[in-house]
Amino acid sequence: MTKDIPEISLQRLPVYLNYLKSLPEGDKYISSGAIAAALGMGEVLVRKDLAYTSSSGRPKVGYVRTELIAAIEEYLGCDKKKTAVLVGVGGLGSALLGYGGFGKYGIDIVEAYDNDPAKVGTQVGGRPVLDDCAMAEGIGRCGAVLAILAVPAQAAQTVCDQLVKAGIKGVLNFVPVQLKAPESVVVRNIDVAASLAILASLL
Amino acid sequence: MTKDIPEISLQRLPVYLNYLKSLPEGDKYISSGAIAAALGMGEVLVRKDLAYTSSSGRPKVGYVRTELIAAIEEYLGCDKKKTAVLVGVGGLGSALLGYGGFGKYGIDIVEAYDNDPAKVGTQVGGRPVLDDCAMAEGIGRCGAVLAILAVPAQAAQTVCDQLVKAGIKGVLNFVPVQLKAPESVVVRNIDVAASLAILASLL
Repeated sequence: MTKDIPEISLQRLPVYLNYLKSLPEGDKYISSGAIAAALGMGEVLVRKDLAYTSSSGRPKVGYVRTELIAAIEEYLGCDKKKTAVLVGVGGLGSALLGYGGFGKYGIDIVEAYDNDPAKVGTQVGGRPVLDDCAMAEGIGRCGAVLAILAVPAQAAQTVCDQLVKAGIKGVLNFVPVQLKAPESVVVRNIDVAASLAILASLL
Repeated sequence: MTKDIPEISLQRLPVYLNYLKSLPEGDKYISSGAIAAALGMGEVLVRKDLAYTSSSGRPKVGYVRTELIAAIEEYLGCDKKKTAVLVGVGGLGSALLGYGGFGKYGIDIVEAYDNDPAKVGTQVGGRPVLDDCAMAEGIGRCGAVLAILAVPAQAAQTVCDQLVKAGIKGVLNFVPVQLKAPESVVVRNIDVAASLAILASLL
């Protein structure tokens, strides 16, 4: 899927989506001004972001809320089922397996891998934990293109290489290590401690 | 602390820091070109980002690695101890309490709050879990300015209001809800599911 949308606008689409879904069912219309005010953003920016989706506001009344939700969901591919795996069933990995929020984006984390014999064979968050030796075979079997990486730092690059070799095209990396991957693979990092440190330095 | 650095540059400083720390102790010098190549970034960008810190590269040899590490750490305020609290000791909250990565940025999560009587009075990740009714008193007592929010969506805004009232100046919000807070309070969001959905839509 190639998008002409800037990534910064793309990142805001789930914010709009969450907000629109949080409104009462009875709210039929919503204006870009009301969205902007509720989210503390500029109205021009909101209108520009939303213009990337197929939805268009109507003069005076604004967007039909359900249509706008559907347009954003379609744009984000929520209707397309995507299979993901998770590697590293530690504290964070376990928490992510138990987190129910992926489904609304059409993402299903189907299995997890770990190298700890005590964890292999168990279920965490309803997903089987398999031996990481079975990773390549498992990814091929379930057709996963997405992987969540939550292994110890020293293992991160090796596991990333294995994921890429097994056919993973997108890695959400929770390890505070800059991964090397081919250009055809999209890697995005979430460094929780660094995020809090950056926040602190803005105070 | 007021910074003249763009937030996007600020966000890259921990990336440089992690990389520099991962190099062998024996590596005395590192050039901006070598950093850029290792991290898959442009050299001009690297040099510009690093110029915000007090460190300056030396012609031909580059930066003294330990000096550059110290300069970034100082810029990020790693040497200044900052106290944080966490609200919502569910799966993700528990994982974050057990996560050891905050210390290197000078951040100490000293206590956590939850409204579940079964959790109150226990220790998670070595931190006491207190009744959320004791939140205002606790934040005042420990002098926390940072809070991590990991409560259910429907409670997020109420808890955020309580945190602000108690004196919290920065909130790292893991709840997929857009929080309203006074301008003097910095809120940053980490929406894991949305991040994975965005990643998927870039494939």
